[in-house]
Amino acid sequence: MKVLKDKKENIFKARDFIKKLVNENADFIIFPEMFNCPYDNSFFREFSEDYDSGETIKFLSNEAKENNIYIIGGSIPELYDGKVYNSSFVFDRKGKLIAKHRKIHLFDIDVKNKIRFKESDVLSAGNDITIFDTEFGKMGVIICYDIRFPELSRIMALKGAKIIFVPGAFNMTTGPAHWELLFRSRALDNQIYMVGVSPARDMDFSYHAYGNSMITDPWGEVVERFDEKENFKVIEIDMKKIDECRESLPYFKHRRTDIYSIEEK
Amino acid sequence: MKVLKDKKENIFKARDFIKKLVNENADFIIFPEMFNCPYDNSFFREFSEDYDSGETIKFLSNEAKENNIYIIGGSIPELYDGKVYNSSFVFDRKGKLIAKHRKIHLFDIDVKNKIRFKESDVLSAGNDITIFDTEFGKMGVIICYDIRFPELSRIMALKGAKIIFVPGAFNMTTGPAHWELLFRSRALDNQIYMVGVSPARDMDFSYHAYGNSMITDPWGEVVERFDEKENFKVIEIDMKKIDECRESLPYFKHRRTDIYSIEEK
Repeated sequence: MKVLKDKKENIFKARDFIKKLVNENADFIIFPEMFNCPYDNSFFREFSEDYDSGETIKFLSNEAKENNIYIIGGSIPELYDGKVYNSSFVFDRKGKLIAKHRKIHLFDIDVKNKIRFKESDVLSAGNDITIFDTEFGKMGVIICYDIRFPELSRIMALKGAKIIFVPGAFNMTTGPAHWELLFRSRALDNQIYMVGVSPARDMDFSYHAYGNSMITDPWGEVVERFDEKENFKVIEIDMKKIDECRESLPYFKHRRTDIYSIEEK
Repeated sequence: MKVLKDKKENIFKARDFIKKLVNENADFIIFPEMFNCPYDNSFFREFSEDYDSGETIKFLSNEAKENNIYIIGGSIPELYDGKVYNSSFVFDRKGKLIAKHRKIHLFDIDVKNKIRFKESDVLSAGNDITIFDTEFGKMGVIICYDIRFPELSRIMALKGAKIIFVPGAFNMTTGPAHWELLFRSRALDNQIYMVGVSPARDMDFSYHAYGNSMITDPWGEVVERFDEKENFKVIEIDMKKIDECRESLPYFKHRRTDIYSIEEK
């Protein structure tokens, strides 16, 4: 999605995409990071909404229910107890909230002469690892910069997540350098699918998203890659490939848990 | 190195490489996995040697001392207490043994119709994480399949390792698919250098090594890549780049150790 500066227009656009994807028999629909709000610190608080009365949240829940699909609501600025979080709301086929991920690792970077961004000026960080159940197996959600931390995906895979959804807006410095590498390696290391969804690039806006929404598979290969423009597509994921890869290269059996440990606290 | 079926010839060849590399002012010399022994279960016990009387081990120690260099002795089959290990011996400029890594994760894989190999039929596994000190900072050694396990490199980086040396012999299935991806991602995730050294490919031998010895840097890029043939080269590593990357993208500061923990047992 190319994100606009008007929340209602973003929701309108999202509704249109859902309609098209439902027509193509999608089971899951995932939106990009901050799909209802421009990715810039100056917009987050103004666009934020709470669970009880938020129009984006209600819209997502209704659409999931009406269309009998799962929706991973990318992320939106969530207002809670006066604080603003970068949060992903996940709804099941009945429109019930089955997961909410608040971005754990805030994006505070400063690459000299290239890109500076400090989410923590405005946003607060979540404290929970997010996994949910579906009839296709367990899945999880992390948001953008969260993917940089191998501990997180590893723990999620060890807890049984077979797909990790990643609404994310990398930029024109970190995107070309690291986006594909991170999605391929997290998928390979954990023998799972990684699904990354980015806003489309808007060169007229302050933050230039890399785009390149992408699915990578448990063999570390790119299954599908978008370009930087607005687009949508139904992509079939072969869940059997996870078991095939784990049989061929049984890392999970070979982990030396007598030498190292990794766990959620 | 293209590894031959005669241990003395392999040592002779190694001596020749050391001479050439010392002439080009190398500080560290690293050999490939099983550089004195063909990589095949049928050779490991016959070629194995123990620390006290092993000719390869004595040779490496002497060369390090005589030439005032560090030698990471790739790996060799080590005999200890009746068991055979896939071990890397590291010597400092005085020829003193400063580290010994016994491959922790044995390579037991079975990719249907492609590659089957079961090290554990003949080899025993080590139990220790291996880091050593140099005047350039801390460094570590892992061997081949060890690189598949992100916990290991992560713990080594958290303990201060700035370079991880990886003698390794990937094959013609896993090499093209995963070798570069693993070296780039371990380097990027941990903001360190990864140095992989493979035997040259020998299509007349039972195991076809991928080759492609490679150095990757803390930005996740390939600094140097060999092809599949026997070759050597002195490559300069810019240690400042580690600090520059950690300043630009301060993952290590952003790790949420209140949410997850990873540690050596």
